[in-house]
Amino acid sequence: MTRDILVSEVAPRDGLQSVSAVLAIADRIALVRALAATGLPEIEVGSFVSPKRLPQMAGTDEVVRDAIAIAGPQIVALVPNRMGAEAAFAVGTPKVTVPVSASIAHSMANVGRDPDAMIAEVEAIHALRLATPGQPGLEIGISTAFGCTIEGPVPEDRVIRLAVAAAEAGADSVGLSDTTGMGNPAQVRRLFKALRREIGDKAGAAHFHDTRGQGLANVVAALDAGVTTFDASLAGLGGCPYAPGAAGNIVTEDLVVLLESMGLSTGVDVEALIAVRALLARLLPDEPLRGAVARAGLAKGYPGKGFNGL
Amino acid sequence: MTRDILVSEVAPRDGLQSVSAVLAIADRIALVRALAATGLPEIEVGSFVSPKRLPQMAGTDEVVRDAIAIAGPQIVALVPNRMGAEAAFAVGTPKVTVPVSASIAHSMANVGRDPDAMIAEVEAIHALRLATPGQPGLEIGISTAFGCTIEGPVPEDRVIRLAVAAAEAGADSVGLSDTTGMGNPAQVRRLFKALRREIGDKAGAAHFHDTRGQGLANVVAALDAGVTTFDASLAGLGGCPYAPGAAGNIVTEDLVVLLESMGLSTGVDVEALIAVRALLARLLPDEPLRGAVARAGLAKGYPGKGFNGL
Repeated sequence: MTRDILVSEVAPRDGLQSVSAVLAIADRIALVRALAATGLPEIEVGSFVSPKRLPQMAGTDEVVRDAIAIAGPQIVALVPNRMGAEAAFAVGTPKVTVPVSASIAHSMANVGRDPDAMIAEVEAIHALRLATPGQPGLEIGISTAFGCTIEGPVPEDRVIRLAVAAAEAGADSVGLSDTTGMGNPAQVRRLFKALRREIGDKAGAAHFHDTRGQGLANVVAALDAGVTTFDASLAGLGGCPYAPGAAGNIVTEDLVVLLESMGLSTGVDVEALIAVRALLARLLPDEPLRGAVARAGLAKGYPGKGFNGL
Repeated sequence: MTRDILVSEVAPRDGLQSVSAVLAIADRIALVRALAATGLPEIEVGSFVSPKRLPQMAGTDEVVRDAIAIAGPQIVALVPNRMGAEAAFAVGTPKVTVPVSASIAHSMANVGRDPDAMIAEVEAIHALRLATPGQPGLEIGISTAFGCTIEGPVPEDRVIRLAVAAAEAGADSVGLSDTTGMGNPAQVRRLFKALRREIGDKAGAAHFHDTRGQGLANVVAALDAGVTTFDASLAGLGGCPYAPGAAGNIVTEDLVVLLESMGLSTGVDVEALIAVRALLARLLPDEPLRGAVARAGLAKGYPGKGFNGL
């Protein structure tokens, strides 16, 4: 199929790890299957972390095993370190994503290592995946790339230096994450342009949180800078347990409508995606579900031929 | 003062006319005064319309009389026709804004005239203002410029043709309004570029509703197209009584933070602006107040020197 933009769904990982409820593994599997049926090309299904720190993510091995049997989406898991990568590769995870925080304070809180130690960890994970059958993919997300709730502004040269180091350590792609919802479109355009200048086609995904309502504005700027992969979360579920005050990810449904309205194809059936919110509401009755499109409905004429210039 | 972007506050008009409560004139005056104290450079304080149709706007003459005595902001009132303009000019309104809907169905519902008849009305209002002491300003907003909840997509050439006709009819500036929240950034960029190509420096304000969460994304695209005036509403109050399903305007607080974070000065004290929400909550206890910045708080380091690249 032709697709202009890859939307990577992170609700089963970024979303579920940020809520207080701990879902049953069968429910997590049901959510991943429902998301996969909407045409989403990539789903981050969980993380391989200590169940003591994030009990919501215990049993991600089972979720991955089920998910990789689904025809369709690329299945991704987050791993914070080599131990997580070993566990992920052991169950056949086809792609892992590793967060490398540009904020020293956030990095220590989130993974217990400073950014440079994380680059060494990326090297080790890269060596490990080269020795793994099928050579799983390795993506890095530079988190707190646009600011940190603890440190405040994060120097842009540090962000780019870490991205270059991650690419040199063997990653297939390196993206930038606004973990804390502090980014603005001018900064997004500048940083993603610098990223592409420095690491070329290894420049990867944009991961925006919507803390201050600027998430989709940042998407427009990232598109200008040539970004073609965006993380997003059904109903905006998400946050970061170690970034106080950080709200959820950008809302997948709203992102898909933004992109498709602009004439950028995603391959996602947005009405089917909106329908999955009902499942999420059943699984997490106490969580607020965000999203403007689900509330307002699709615009008259969307997304037919002739819709607003298409 | 230096200012890069003019933020025009429309809560006292677009906001108050869309809520079911009818505020006392003294309360409307209190709201305008509180908004003026935040440094907002322009405030749309009401509309001169039939009180039978919009009882919320009855007594706008008194609101204008009080507002023009405030040092600081430009005071604007909406007028739907010549009769409204006469009333506005009679009390010394320094600037009027006239909606010309690009959707025939919306135009009939909103002002009881089709778009071409509205252009004739603009000509009459222009003649009237030339005969008025001080020659008040005349701004046109092409409403439903990005789609209509009744008609669906609105032909872009019709939008631009009407804008050109409005400029030729004597308007100082002609802006484009996404009355229904159907616009997308690609369309916004295309239409505002076309507008500037056709009418040059008469190309005016962008007025976006946030129905599907795309309002600030559209702001980024409009900035790219050279727009320097944006309408917005405190707490996102607003809508259109004749555009079913249309939610409120973009949130002024969130817009100001977006712009200032990008290094674009507005002259608005955003903390003072957020504080005015408390007054709005007292005046309209049953209305939901929207806004991400007010909920999340300002980012650490904002808006000091060195904040995210400033």
